[in-house]
Amino acid sequence: MINAVGRDIPQNIIEATKKEVFKGAYAFDNYEYTKAAPKVRAVCDPKRSKLVENIHEALVKCGVKDNMTISFHHHFREGDYIVNMVMEEIHKMGIKGLTICASSLGKAHDPIVPMIEDGTIVGIQSSGVRGKIGEAISTGKLRDLAIMRSHGGRVRAVESGEVHIDIAFIGAPTCDEYGNMKANGGKSDCGVLSYAMVDAEYADKVVAITDCLVPFPNAPASISMVHVDYVCVVDEIGNPAKIATGAAKPTTDVRKIMMADYCTQFVINTPYFKEGFSYQTGVGGASIASTISLGKIMEERGIHMGLGLGGITTPMCNLLEKGLIRTIVDTQDFDMGAIESIKKNPNHIEISASEYANPFNKGAYVNKLDFVILASLEVDVNFNCNVVVGSDGMITGAQGGHPDTAAGAKCTIVIAPLLQGRIPAICSNVTTVTTPGETVDVVITDYGIAINPRRQDLIDCMKDVKLPFCTIEELRDRAYAMVGEPDPVQFGDRIVGVIEGRDGTIMDVVREIKAYEFQD
Amino acid sequence: MINAVGRDIPQNIIEATKKEVFKGAYAFDNYEYTKAAPKVRAVCDPKRSKLVENIHEALVKCGVKDNMTISFHHHFREGDYIVNMVMEEIHKMGIKGLTICASSLGKAHDPIVPMIEDGTIVGIQSSGVRGKIGEAISTGKLRDLAIMRSHGGRVRAVESGEVHIDIAFIGAPTCDEYGNMKANGGKSDCGVLSYAMVDAEYADKVVAITDCLVPFPNAPASISMVHVDYVCVVDEIGNPAKIATGAAKPTTDVRKIMMADYCTQFVINTPYFKEGFSYQTGVGGASIASTISLGKIMEERGIHMGLGLGGITTPMCNLLEKGLIRTIVDTQDFDMGAIESIKKNPNHIEISASEYANPFNKGAYVNKLDFVILASLEVDVNFNCNVVVGSDGMITGAQGGHPDTAAGAKCTIVIAPLLQGRIPAICSNVTTVTTPGETVDVVITDYGIAINPRRQDLIDCMKDVKLPFCTIEELRDRAYAMVGEPDPVQFGDRIVGVIEGRDGTIMDVVREIKAYEFQD
Repeated sequence: MINAVGRDIPQNIIEATKKEVFKGAYAFDNYEYTKAAPKVRAVCDPKRSKLVENIHEALVKCGVKDNMTISFHHHFREGDYIVNMVMEEIHKMGIKGLTICASSLGKAHDPIVPMIEDGTIVGIQSSGVRGKIGEAISTGKLRDLAIMRSHGGRVRAVESGEVHIDIAFIGAPTCDEYGNMKANGGKSDCGVLSYAMVDAEYADKVVAITDCLVPFPNAPASISMVHVDYVCVVDEIGNPAKIATGAAKPTTDVRKIMMADYCTQFVINTPYFKEGFSYQTGVGGASIASTISLGKIMEERGIHMGLGLGGITTPMCNLLEKGLIRTIVDTQDFDMGAIESIKKNPNHIEISASEYANPFNKGAYVNKLDFVILASLEVDVNFNCNVVVGSDGMITGAQGGHPDTAAGAKCTIVIAPLLQGRIPAICSNVTTVTTPGETVDVVITDYGIAINPRRQDLIDCMKDVKLPFCTIEELRDRAYAMVGEPDPVQFGDRIVGVIEGRDGTIMDVVREIKAYEFQD
Repeated sequence: MINAVGRDIPQNIIEATKKEVFKGAYAFDNYEYTKAAPKVRAVCDPKRSKLVENIHEALVKCGVKDNMTISFHHHFREGDYIVNMVMEEIHKMGIKGLTICASSLGKAHDPIVPMIEDGTIVGIQSSGVRGKIGEAISTGKLRDLAIMRSHGGRVRAVESGEVHIDIAFIGAPTCDEYGNMKANGGKSDCGVLSYAMVDAEYADKVVAITDCLVPFPNAPASISMVHVDYVCVVDEIGNPAKIATGAAKPTTDVRKIMMADYCTQFVINTPYFKEGFSYQTGVGGASIASTISLGKIMEERGIHMGLGLGGITTPMCNLLEKGLIRTIVDTQDFDMGAIESIKKNPNHIEISASEYANPFNKGAYVNKLDFVILASLEVDVNFNCNVVVGSDGMITGAQGGHPDTAAGAKCTIVIAPLLQGRIPAICSNVTTVTTPGETVDVVITDYGIAINPRRQDLIDCMKDVKLPFCTIEELRDRAYAMVGEPDPVQFGDRIVGVIEGRDGTIMDVVREIKAYEFQD
């Protein structure tokens, strides 16, 4: 069945997943459903302790068994030790058939690939995967379909009952004996625990894992004891050096700086750039450069941001410190500057991933965005974006908040260099659709800027603005003129993954990669 | 059927309520159940507004209809305008058969009594009732059984699905257009919104009512927009002068001061009085005097409270300011000093009523109490307490956190003058059991102190302590010797209310009051 972004979703996948195909970014507005709910065991005897000796005891007490779904968060990013630590113990216990529902997985988790191969892990649901896990999925080693969800889509999937988490393992930089967790104050601070909040609320069993046990109460808690069954103290939950890889350095790439300047010029010429505007950027060099250049103009004109959202990096925190932002609300910290900021600045506030981006709650922060500045591996002439599958067909990225913020923001700007190496970033058809073009308003490249024809209002705004505007087709043609139109990636028949729309529909499928065969 | 506190619960009440009878304070420890869940309508179209013109429009949009259950919180206490404002509009619309599930109701709500009489309101579930609502229930005017729950019991009832709230009306001192609510920063500050948090999470429809609309985002929010359907701005949500009736004044009643001194002497001679201890008091004069006298000893001995819980008054906040308390966690503010404290002191922290006292979550704060100092209308020789029904049989009080804290604390101390006027506070049988004697460790009166024989450990601790210890029977006998044993209250046959144990069992029933008849 052809969905609303023109992708043909095979009937057997629709049947196997019991999902509908994507019908448009706002098709589920006002959709009514009954929320999911966990099984809970009451702790009303004050004499009971939640402390367990080790991960093994936690697993035994949680009743871990074959075919369960277990969950993890990715606030420790490439410094995470929790996934491997828990999976190693599960593997030793001989448990099989597990599905991992993680907010994201990265190269730090390469060690679990043998557990995919031996059937310990048969399902992966994640914002995305990188490294060897991506290769394992793309080469057909995972038994079940991998499901790639946006950050908002993951919360929706859990809260709507599409996925039920049996046991959630939550790494906590600090925790008390009763399970009150905080993201800071320990030896492996991660700034916020936003992605893990839904796991705590909806998993049947919740295990807090910490390397810094603090006196009761660890309050105010990011995640409350009322959701926590067991508390396990380990030596190290992460490698602080890799959790946040230092302050984001301003880019020196002139191409990125040029695109950032285009972006800033575009932003300030829209009607949304006014006192109290709201704004989010990704962590790409050009996005960060845009924040810096926008900050200068805000300062010159005395315009303040009312709300900075995200995925937070140091340049946003610098604007907060300067008084140019009223409030930052934060679901993820990408560098040490952001982590330090949330520790000390009361206007830098932790929120849940549901508050951030869940399309099925009663209104998320993304709905209130004026601007979001995003990157993309590929953008096609329908403004569809691909942020998960490389142009070589290998799964190597993550949806993150891309489709969520694009759907929410009044002005969604995607910055992409026209060529990524020898690969055109602007193309006729993206390898895989992750963010529907109907939610992408502007594409900024180093060779020109295309406004989505759906946004005649923005086209009108820009009619006297001196920026290199052109059509998206012109950008594609220019790219193809330079490096040629690439042959389509050759996939096998087997479908290995589903790109889920934030509303739970099928946006696209990912096929098994196959070795390139020369055409006759 | 006779329950664990010796009350005979009629079979027809067991059947009508589908409840079990009380089996002991910890009978439901480790009880497993699936949480309830609300119906939710997704707001993913960023163009939709949540603002409504008035209460009437909110009611229409929420689809109010006969026989619904609606809810309110009582943080505005005797200054609350919300209940009457909403009920007046509902009454105008001709809706009938409503059940009100409130965290508590007071004299401020006397105006709803005619709506009980005309069938607009047929059910009341509350921590307690005072004034004319209590009289209306006690004289048989309410169609359904009134259900009296502790603060923890109410959260349990909602989270377990025993009561399902169709529409929650939440008065918010400040709110933004998307429903982020805070307890402070407006013209009717109430300190915390703890009791309303479960309503926001579990009601199908949630209406935020504010008299101070603030710019988005009102963050960090006490109650998040993700739970809120509509936002309604009204002129006044409460009368600030009655929300908090000024700083609690230290009592000058020598009898209360003496009991407070007994209490402090008792506390400091237990093994629990040590660095980092946890503590809660009620708001009675003797309880507050105990806090003050205990504070002096803490200061002399250099002992710090790790956790102050409650129901907060100025004397607790003063100890926090002096550095004698590490953290106060707060579910209700009883005076202006407490409200000012939570605004300015980062170690004074708002928690949910579930975190405070819910016996069916994975561990509440009450479980971590070393001491709780409580008052009681009556205590009987089995240490059972009555805090809801007056000795004249009229409903006139509230469970509050009484049974919750008593069950949680290592040392539960009840302070009661031996005589309340001409009525013995220590008696053979309380009029109605609200808190089971198995959870009450010590009763302090102006004529002597009785330790529950179950607590041989505390009796041993006190063997060299110079306090007027005696048995509870001796206290009862002394009271009866002074004023005579009162005739039992004469009730009618009809049962008008149920005192629910915090675990949802039937602790006791309340019968219709009848005019006193002289015996032959």
